[in-house]
Amino acid sequence: MKIGILGGGQLGRMLIQEALKYDDEFYTLDPNSDCSCAQISTFTKGNFNDFQTVLDFGKDKDIVSIEIEHVSVAALEELENHGIKVIPNSNIIKIIQQKILQKEFYKKNGIPSPDFQVIQSLEDEIKIAFPFVQKLNTGGYDGKGVQVIRSEIDLDIMWDEPSVLENLVDIEKELSIIIAKNEADEIKTFPVTEMIADPKLNLLDFNICPAEISAEVQEQIDKIAEQFMSAADSAGLFAIELFLDKEGKIWVNETAPRLHNSGHQTQEGNANSQFEQFYRVLKNFPLADNSVKQFSGMLNLIGEENYSGKVKYQGLEDVLKLPNSYVHLYGKTETKPGRKMGHINVLANSREELLEQLIHIKSLVKVIAE
Amino acid sequence: MKIGILGGGQLGRMLIQEALKYDDEFYTLDPNSDCSCAQISTFTKGNFNDFQTVLDFGKDKDIVSIEIEHVSVAALEELENHGIKVIPNSNIIKIIQQKILQKEFYKKNGIPSPDFQVIQSLEDEIKIAFPFVQKLNTGGYDGKGVQVIRSEIDLDIMWDEPSVLENLVDIEKELSIIIAKNEADEIKTFPVTEMIADPKLNLLDFNICPAEISAEVQEQIDKIAEQFMSAADSAGLFAIELFLDKEGKIWVNETAPRLHNSGHQTQEGNANSQFEQFYRVLKNFPLADNSVKQFSGMLNLIGEENYSGKVKYQGLEDVLKLPNSYVHLYGKTETKPGRKMGHINVLANSREELLEQLIHIKSLVKVIAE
Repeated sequence: MKIGILGGGQLGRMLIQEALKYDDEFYTLDPNSDCSCAQISTFTKGNFNDFQTVLDFGKDKDIVSIEIEHVSVAALEELENHGIKVIPNSNIIKIIQQKILQKEFYKKNGIPSPDFQVIQSLEDEIKIAFPFVQKLNTGGYDGKGVQVIRSEIDLDIMWDEPSVLENLVDIEKELSIIIAKNEADEIKTFPVTEMIADPKLNLLDFNICPAEISAEVQEQIDKIAEQFMSAADSAGLFAIELFLDKEGKIWVNETAPRLHNSGHQTQEGNANSQFEQFYRVLKNFPLADNSVKQFSGMLNLIGEENYSGKVKYQGLEDVLKLPNSYVHLYGKTETKPGRKMGHINVLANSREELLEQLIHIKSLVKVIAE
Repeated sequence: MKIGILGGGQLGRMLIQEALKYDDEFYTLDPNSDCSCAQISTFTKGNFNDFQTVLDFGKDKDIVSIEIEHVSVAALEELENHGIKVIPNSNIIKIIQQKILQKEFYKKNGIPSPDFQVIQSLEDEIKIAFPFVQKLNTGGYDGKGVQVIRSEIDLDIMWDEPSVLENLVDIEKELSIIIAKNEADEIKTFPVTEMIADPKLNLLDFNICPAEISAEVQEQIDKIAEQFMSAADSAGLFAIELFLDKEGKIWVNETAPRLHNSGHQTQEGNANSQFEQFYRVLKNFPLADNSVKQFSGMLNLIGEENYSGKVKYQGLEDVLKLPNSYVHLYGKTETKPGRKMGHINVLANSREELLEQLIHIKSLVKVIAE
C-alpha cells in the first residue's frame, strides 16, 4: 500500500524503519530535503501546512497520516471527502492542534485537565489566579509556546496572542500513556511511562517505564484513556501527557495525536514498539502485544549549548561498549543547541539500576559539532 | 560514512534497516532494480560479478562489503589496492567462493571437514567411495549446485564441471555458528543454532536457538570457530554451517562470509542481532552483546509450488494476532516457487513450546500469488 506521512522527522524515520519488515511503500512530505526521512522514503519537498501541497501529496495514496500535528487540517478533510483513509481523522487533529479547542474538548468530555481561561489578546481581563501557565493556542511544540506566569512581575513577559491560561499544577510526577486504536476498534495501551524533564531546555530528558505509581493512580489513568479514546472517535496512536499532583490526582497536560518521544524506549523495552503498533493501526492489522518484560528507559541526545554545525557524538563508542544500551540516531547531519539528534534506550532489572545506567550514560556522551 | 554493499537482497535490506539507528549512507549494487534494497538505499543497477562495474561502484566509498559472495573478487582486490576498506577481505571471499579452495583451506588449517576429492570434469577417475556429495566449484547457492550420489545408478546425473566430491556425513543435526570480528580483533560468537531443513526444497526451514548439544560438542564447535577466524585473518561476519554426525563428531559443511539465514532469529531473540553486529564490524565499533534470554526460532516464508506472480501472504493476519511472533517480509513483490520472501521469528520459554509454535505458524501461513 502507498502510505503518505506528513512530516519527515525522526518519528517518521523510526516508523518507516520498523515497517521495513513489511512490504508497503512510504512517501513523506517535509519542507526540509535534509530531513530524517528523505533518504529512506519517496520524498516530496513541501510545506505540510499548505492546503494545495497536502492535497496534491495525499490524493494518490491509500493512507495518509502524520508525524507532526501542525499540518493543513483543511486538506486532510478534503482528502477524507475524496475517500482517502486519513489516520488519525482530521477532526481530532484539528482539536489537538489548537490548545483552546483541546482544553474545551477535555472539559466537555469530563476529562480532568487543569482549570483554565481563554484569552484572545492581552486586552482581555485575566481572571485566573497566580501562578498560571500561558499556552499559545497554536504553534507550541517541544516546550515552545508555553510559559509559567508566577506573579504580577511576570505579566510583562506574557504573549499578546490567543492563549489558554491554566492553573499551574503542583507536580509530583510527569507521566505519559500511549494508546492505539485500529479501525476494527481494537484498543491497546502501553504501560504508563514516567518522564523526567530537564528544567532548562524544557525537553524530555529521561523516560522510565513502567512508572512507579499506585494502583489508585493507575485507575485514574485507565479511566482517562478510556474517556479520551471514546471522545476522540478515531483510529490512531495517541500520547497523553499527564501530571500527578502532590495530592495524588491525575491531570491531563496535553495530547499528541501521533508517535511520541515518551514511547521511544518501547523499541527494545516492549514486546512490540509504538512504531510497530502505529504501523498496525495504519493497516488496520491486529494490534501487537506491547507488554514490558524488564525496566526500560530512554535519554534524549540533544545538541549541546554553544555547538552548531556538523554533528559529532562525543563518547558514543563508550556507550556502544555497554550491554543493555541501544543507540538511535536520527540521520541529522547538523546539530544546534537543543535539537533532538537521537536517543539511547536502556534495559535493566530494577528501577534503581535503570536510573543509575541512564545517569552514567548521560555523563559519557555529548552532542557537539566537529 | 559511505557504505557500499554488493548485492541488494534481503540480507542487505535487514542490515540497512538495523543501521538506520545510525547516520551512515548506504549504497547498493544489484542487477535487479526491483530488489529488496532498491528503495531504501542509493541504488545502482549493475552486475556485481563484473570487474569494472564493481570498481566504479566501490571507488568513492569508505567501506565496501557484500551480502552475497558471488562477486568480482578481482575488483575487490583492486579496491583494496586503492586503499578502500573491503570487509571481509577479498582473499577470504575468493577462498569461500570456490568450493575447491574452501575445502583445501579447511584441510590446510586442520579444520574438520568431510574427506574429499577434486574433479575437473567427469573424465577424472572417481576415487571416493559411495555415497558422496558432489558440490560444484562455483555457482552453488541456497542448496543449488549440490547433489548426493548414493551409488553407481546416480553416476549419470553427475555434473560435468569442476567439483568437490566429499564423503556424505551421517547427519544427526545441522548446526550453524555466526562469528563476528572487527578490525580491532575483537571477536564475538553467537550461540549455536540448530537448522531443520526441508528435504524437498533443500532450503532452510526452521532455526532453533540455542541448539540442544552437549558440552563436548560445544567444545568442538568453539575450537572450529577459533581455527577458522585465525586462518581467515579478516574482519567480517561469518556463518559456518556444521554437521553433527551420529558419533557425536562435528564437521564443517561450508562457510558463508556474510550475514546468514541461520541468524535471522537474532533480530528478536538476542540482545543484539547479526545485522547490528555486522554493522559494528563494518564501522570497527565495539562488538555488541549477542546473548540470548529466551528460546528463539525462525521459519522461512517460501513461495509455494505452483504459484507465480504478485505475492499474497495467506493467513498473515492470523500470525499477527499471536504474541511472541515477528513477521519480516523482504519487500519482494513477485513470488515464485521456492523463492525466499520473508521469515517469521518466534520467542518461547522452552524448546518444546518453540517447536510447537513454529509448526503452528507454518500451518497458518502460505505464500501464494494473487
